[in-house]
Amino acid sequence: MPVRLAELAVRYGCELRGDPDAEVDRVATLLEATPGSLAFLANPRYRRHLATTRATAVVLDAKAADECPVNALVTPNPYATYARIAELMYPVAPFAPGRHATAAVDPGAAVDPSAWIGPQACIEAGATIGPKVYVGPGCVVLRGATIGEESKLVANVTVCEGARIGRRCLLHPGAVIGADGFGHAPDGGRYVRVPQVGSVVLGDDVDVGASSTIDRGAIGDTVVEDGVKIDNQVQIGHNVRVGAHTVIAGCVGISGSTTIGRRCMIGGMVGIAGHLEICDDVALTGKTLVSSSIRRPGMYSGALPADEARSFRRNSARFQQLDELARRVRALEAASGRPRGED
Amino acid sequence: MPVRLAELAVRYGCELRGDPDAEVDRVATLLEATPGSLAFLANPRYRRHLATTRATAVVLDAKAADECPVNALVTPNPYATYARIAELMYPVAPFAPGRHATAAVDPGAAVDPSAWIGPQACIEAGATIGPKVYVGPGCVVLRGATIGEESKLVANVTVCEGARIGRRCLLHPGAVIGADGFGHAPDGGRYVRVPQVGSVVLGDDVDVGASSTIDRGAIGDTVVEDGVKIDNQVQIGHNVRVGAHTVIAGCVGISGSTTIGRRCMIGGMVGIAGHLEICDDVALTGKTLVSSSIRRPGMYSGALPADEARSFRRNSARFQQLDELARRVRALEAASGRPRGED
Amino acid sequence: MPVRLAELAVRYGCELRGDPDAEVDRVATLLEATPGSLAFLANPRYRRHLATTRATAVVLDAKAADECPVNALVTPNPYATYARIAELMYPVAPFAPGRHATAAVDPGAAVDPSAWIGPQACIEAGATIGPKVYVGPGCVVLRGATIGEESKLVANVTVCEGARIGRRCLLHPGAVIGADGFGHAPDGGRYVRVPQVGSVVLGDDVDVGASSTIDRGAIGDTVVEDGVKIDNQVQIGHNVRVGAHTVIAGCVGISGSTTIGRRCMIGGMVGIAGHLEICDDVALTGKTLVSSSIRRPGMYSGALPADEARSFRRNSARFQQLDELARRVRALEAASGRPRGED
Repeated sequence: MPVRLAELAVRYGCELRGDPDAEVDRVATLLEATPGSLAFLANPRYRRHLATTRATAVVLDAKAADECPVNALVTPNPYATYARIAELMYPVAPFAPGRHATAAVDPGAAVDPSAWIGPQACIEAGATIGPKVYVGPGCVVLRGATIGEESKLVANVTVCEGARIGRRCLLHPGAVIGADGFGHAPDGGRYVRVPQVGSVVLGDDVDVGASSTIDRGAIGDTVVEDGVKIDNQVQIGHNVRVGAHTVIAGCVGISGSTTIGRRCMIGGMVGIAGHLEICDDVALTGKTLVSSSIRRPGMYSGALPADEARSFRRNSARFQQLDELARRVRALEAASGRPRGED
Repeated sequence: MPVRLAELAVRYGCELRGDPDAEVDRVATLLEATPGSLAFLANPRYRRHLATTRATAVVLDAKAADECPVNALVTPNPYATYARIAELMYPVAPFAPGRHATAAVDPGAAVDPSAWIGPQACIEAGATIGPKVYVGPGCVVLRGATIGEESKLVANVTVCEGARIGRRCLLHPGAVIGADGFGHAPDGGRYVRVPQVGSVVLGDDVDVGASSTIDRGAIGDTVVEDGVKIDNQVQIGHNVRVGAHTVIAGCVGISGSTTIGRRCMIGGMVGIAGHLEICDDVALTGKTLVSSSIRRPGMYSGALPADEARSFRRNSARFQQLDELARRVRALEAASGRPRGED
Repeated sequence: MPVRLAELAVRYGCELRGDPDAEVDRVATLLEATPGSLAFLANPRYRRHLATTRATAVVLDAKAADECPVNALVTPNPYATYARIAELMYPVAPFAPGRHATAAVDPGAAVDPSAWIGPQACIEAGATIGPKVYVGPGCVVLRGATIGEESKLVANVTVCEGARIGRRCLLHPGAVIGADGFGHAPDGGRYVRVPQVGSVVLGDDVDVGASSTIDRGAIGDTVVEDGVKIDNQVQIGHNVRVGAHTVIAGCVGISGSTTIGRRCMIGGMVGIAGHLEICDDVALTGKTLVSSSIRRPGMYSGALPADEARSFRRNSARFQQLDELARRVRALEAASGRPRGED
């Protein structure tokens, strides 16, 4: 759908530098753009592609605008503005309400007439499917679960017994919401399953990535607050609470009963132990292990960067002598009459 | 279902301190309990909540019982006793045998008349579904697979060709049992798929978490022994053997042909390389990498804890000079005439 | 199916040492083989089992052949040769074309008459299912997706809107190809979803393991080139490009917009940050974190090996003082008049 730059500028509050009648009908990267494309510049890493872009227009901020060789839509937040324009240019296909002939909807389920239940889906008794909800192919909503208004379950999603999904949530394929938490009581060399009788509650505007899993609580609920964005292959244990507007990158694991604050940014493959508290506004870089509570906002790390294998092997062998090495340094200090380092 | 404390004490062998006629009808945490609730105290971390709890009764051990302000059910193992009481108070819903109209059950499958095959499920030819098995919505049991008595496949579980699942197993949504192992033979810059002709065998009372995957063997079987508990997002490679009553937390990966002993406790995100042997009674803390066999029981670790990013960056830069640093310390020792440290 | 050694030798270009009329009808490991079995020796770790094997024949290289106590099929690449023989001995079951009565195939989908669409599968409008494709039970192919000739979707696989799968690909249960990339633009303390308008393209002969996820591009495509082999639980972010004949072990995560070269070998649980370039022929050992580009072929590592917990704790406490320790060593060097180490 072609759209005039003037319309975009007005609609999204940008300053337009260039031809108001120029039109764009698709998006592209700065590097790959051709005439008719809209590009954007938000990550400074890609600024080097600006001078030679063939885009019809670029969304960028005032600092970068002077270097823009083509039409510019200038805005303080180019990435968010780009997102909104892309949403306009690539509207989500509307769907007709109803249910596919192959859907298995229990008569005891409450399905809003404006919802769509897709092929091979299953809605059990006592489940509630809200207005304008989209339940894609192969999705399963078990007994007593609730899906809030305008939420979308893309395909092969599982929402377990009693789980409550808010409004405008987006659950990607393979996501599992509300499986039993991992509770096993040791008893004479064996384990007794601990019934998981809590539930899981997702707020509004929560996204859950493909194959991510969020367990129901053991007692009381697992809670994911409004606006939380969860990438693929993330595991969230029972009775975790994730504060509003926190983002969680791929392959993260959060153990049971941990509380994560609001507006946190959790990098890929981070692991967080159980029963901890992470305060608001904490950023964790990729692969960090969090094994104790974090009470001060800020950025935390914990994973060594890759090195050539031979060099890494030498250094990691030394790591196993590190305490010993520190003692030897202290002994040298003592012998030399120098003040001892703090340790 | 309200139950008298006297009955609980008798049934589960607890000493009752307090009113035998008091009744509980639900479980709650010490902190959130209200009258009518049963709570428990097992993790010392939560002992501070005991004095002010409003629970009607608390399951705890003798040491903690003196501080209990309400009725106490005293037992040496409060967590396991709580688990059993909760199982009584929250009985699993019984199911009627049969099959849902939308289930696709091949006439060549052997389905016990006491089993339930749910909506959208698929049972292929040659599969055997044992007595009182529950196959939930969207589950797939491929050709020749066997599901043992009283096992439950919650929803969207896949059991591949020829896999054998024991009795009373619990497979959570998205679990995949018996996919091909990862076997590819390099051949002139390309790879040739190595047929995976072994199978996978799960013992009795094995739990497999949501989205966990256990591959079939390349030659011979992958084996998970009785009572093993596997959390979500765990990957178990071909020809692994996991010893009885071992617990595996979320996001763990175990590479092919590794043997894990009995009663091990494997923390979250642990990675275990292939072709290793881990003996019985090994505990691995979260995120540890195991790259060689472990032959002595005990606790092992390997992941650095999180630190402020700036500080971590400085230290990890030094890590890359660690071998050099150790050499410099040795040179100082030599120059000072001190005995050299062992390295 | 019994097969004569003479036939195997001729068909796969092996030198036969022993009885050309001996027959094998199954494969086994050296250790577990019994008469009638074919075994192979490729990993030197298992050479110790050669002398006592009861196999009827062993596939091995010339160096090992002299020690072989039974018939030998001698070849420079025993693993690849074994793979081909096993493929002959365990042929994949052929399937009849058509569709199961419970499959939901939209009339607007183009399904080749030689393809099979299994029970509970769903093929949406605009999807194209190529010749001899096998779509297993519970698989979902969304609008506009394409599955190339002879590819197999085992069961419960999801191929999202517009994704393009090449020929002879093998997608294991729970794999999700083409879910939305993780794009969220921060905007005043909240996030705006960034429409993911690119697609995902898998080349020919690509394997994707159980529960692995490959996201569609934000703008432009995510690309997995020919012959790439991906194990279970792997996450590949939007706009990643994986070069041909690269192998990726289980639980790996690759963040968005990163390019991986050809013939790389990525160990289990490796994490690769976004917007990086990894050149051809890079090997990464298990659990390595790659946080900057790698421009030289070779082997790289980054994860400490497991140690006894007590010892590890002492050393990792010292790690947090490592920069300080290095400064103290330098001060000692200065005081002693020794040349300073390089740091």
